[in-house]
Amino acid sequence: MTRRLWSDFVSKLEPYVPGEQPRVDNLVKLNTNENPYGPSPQVGEAITAELGAELRLYPPPNADRLKQAIADYHKVNIQQVFVGNGSDEVLAHAFNGLFRHGKPLLFPDITYSFYPVYCGLYEIEGRKVPLTDSFEIAVEDYCVPNGGIIFPNPNAPTGRLLALDQIASLLKNNRDSVVCVDEAYIDFGGDSAIALVEEFDNLLVIQTLSKSRSLAGLRLGFAIGHPQLIEALERIKNSFNSYPVSRLAIAGGVAAFADEAYFQQTCEAVISSREALVAALEKLGFEVIPSAANFALARHPNYSGEYLMTALRERNIIVRHFGAARIEQFLRITVGTPQQIDLLLTALTEIIN
Amino acid sequence: MTRRLWSDFVSKLEPYVPGEQPRVDNLVKLNTNENPYGPSPQVGEAITAELGAELRLYPPPNADRLKQAIADYHKVNIQQVFVGNGSDEVLAHAFNGLFRHGKPLLFPDITYSFYPVYCGLYEIEGRKVPLTDSFEIAVEDYCVPNGGIIFPNPNAPTGRLLALDQIASLLKNNRDSVVCVDEAYIDFGGDSAIALVEEFDNLLVIQTLSKSRSLAGLRLGFAIGHPQLIEALERIKNSFNSYPVSRLAIAGGVAAFADEAYFQQTCEAVISSREALVAALEKLGFEVIPSAANFALARHPNYSGEYLMTALRERNIIVRHFGAARIEQFLRITVGTPQQIDLLLTALTEIIN
Repeated sequence: MTRRLWSDFVSKLEPYVPGEQPRVDNLVKLNTNENPYGPSPQVGEAITAELGAELRLYPPPNADRLKQAIADYHKVNIQQVFVGNGSDEVLAHAFNGLFRHGKPLLFPDITYSFYPVYCGLYEIEGRKVPLTDSFEIAVEDYCVPNGGIIFPNPNAPTGRLLALDQIASLLKNNRDSVVCVDEAYIDFGGDSAIALVEEFDNLLVIQTLSKSRSLAGLRLGFAIGHPQLIEALERIKNSFNSYPVSRLAIAGGVAAFADEAYFQQTCEAVISSREALVAALEKLGFEVIPSAANFALARHPNYSGEYLMTALRERNIIVRHFGAARIEQFLRITVGTPQQIDLLLTALTEIIN
Repeated sequence: MTRRLWSDFVSKLEPYVPGEQPRVDNLVKLNTNENPYGPSPQVGEAITAELGAELRLYPPPNADRLKQAIADYHKVNIQQVFVGNGSDEVLAHAFNGLFRHGKPLLFPDITYSFYPVYCGLYEIEGRKVPLTDSFEIAVEDYCVPNGGIIFPNPNAPTGRLLALDQIASLLKNNRDSVVCVDEAYIDFGGDSAIALVEEFDNLLVIQTLSKSRSLAGLRLGFAIGHPQLIEALERIKNSFNSYPVSRLAIAGGVAAFADEAYFQQTCEAVISSREALVAALEKLGFEVIPSAANFALARHPNYSGEYLMTALRERNIIVRHFGAARIEQFLRITVGTPQQIDLLLTALTEIIN
């Protein structure tokens, strides 16, 4: 059989390739920006309480309990909240529902590599706007006709943060486009653009519970924005899957937002480890892009990114290397525990000397 | 703000409306075809074992452990298996990846009401093929040019089963179209078309763990078919969400397939209750469509479906009533526990007399 039964566009898709999830013992896994600390113990308790006979019942289709917890936490109204099966699903619906306008969608040349994949899936023209030489977003470069703007803040894989006043300026200059700020890493060192949703009806902020809440394995993401933007996402969701968020994910997500002390403590531990990692990498001669995220993008003047990645891999340490233009010399290193960082630094010292 | 920021097609969507999930105590809930028995106790144990620090890690993106369990159970190869976040997600990807051919997609006039919604989402022309007067699928009616064929077997909300030889005939007559058999209810009384996947490369069978495996709250569905059909679904999935199935869903799903004794025992209990329910409804004067599913579609000659639904609702019993043509006089009643069926029958006797 050929692919004769495929819809035409399927052959043209270039699917996203996620970082590996190898099943190797004692692996130092610093390749997919997971949180080195587990989720709040309250999450496990809440999920355990949700097990049993209720699992036979469909979840509440609107996941209202989770939406309310997020709304309360971020001091917005429940009509300003959308939840999904990981922020990737939320992003997909945003592309489909808010970015298909026959004009190009703008995003940085160096950014989350899923964006061009969504463009392929929804037949949107994506236009890459180059970052500055120092890998920064220059908002004035986005003052061109567009069907939407999206970028992560902090950006990935650079880690660089864009200040809120710059985002406000971007929103002001693009009132007829949805500006989507993808804040997967915001809790590790930035101010959320959620502060701007009351002022700008064209702003959609997307966050995930995979990073700062340490729930990558549970699959939860959400969006906050004007109710009319949220309604577009709801219409797509209700035309795609009535119940994208499981009973266990609802219970676990609510518990994650309830345990503020644990959240603060683990975020601070990650931030403090990042600062230590960056200082140590610089001491080894690496150039490190200033990061507000739970990873650092770094290159060494004498060793290629690919070489270092491979040499680390031989020592059972995995980091992420992108073959893409401008960053092919870099490694993206997730901030692990202090122990994992020690192992990484020891290995790098060995490789470099 | 108007809807000026929506993608054009969003306003035209007519989203699916799922059955209610009310939070009312002592409700007799017979409206969304959930299994009256909880899942296998092994499912809860497996999920509990998966809790803890591993939840911080992304799930294996291909959910291979779950795919292998399904492949082993159904005696197919892992390359013939696709898994998703509920069978609705699997259906959505099938519509997108296999049914967009510029020719109409055929499905019965009385069927799962999400199919026309997917057509709206993916801009597919859907053509309804009327069931016979006795609500049966006549396969010869599908011998017209088409871009695909889909129907549930047993059909929903009729409950009627189409025999495998009829499905084989349909597949033979439509070699250039994907024929998708949506087997959400097959374990309650039919033979799965999975038996035909080796013979027909144009067959895609979709099943769910929400019904016979009693895991509606966990969100798991899967498809079995030729590897080239599965590859199309994988390409869509990997362009949409790398990790649609959570760690907990993978663990729970594997456990559900391991506990065959529990599965057989609960399916048999549902089937035996269905037969008792149908006999009792007929005794009350109802006409009941022969059902191979975990629900019965029934109408009373003297009382409208809407009247009966409302009268039951006042007694804290909810069943599903569809306003659609040809079935507006019917109620769709989920097979509950013997106790729930007794409560239903007592209430109906009261209402009718």
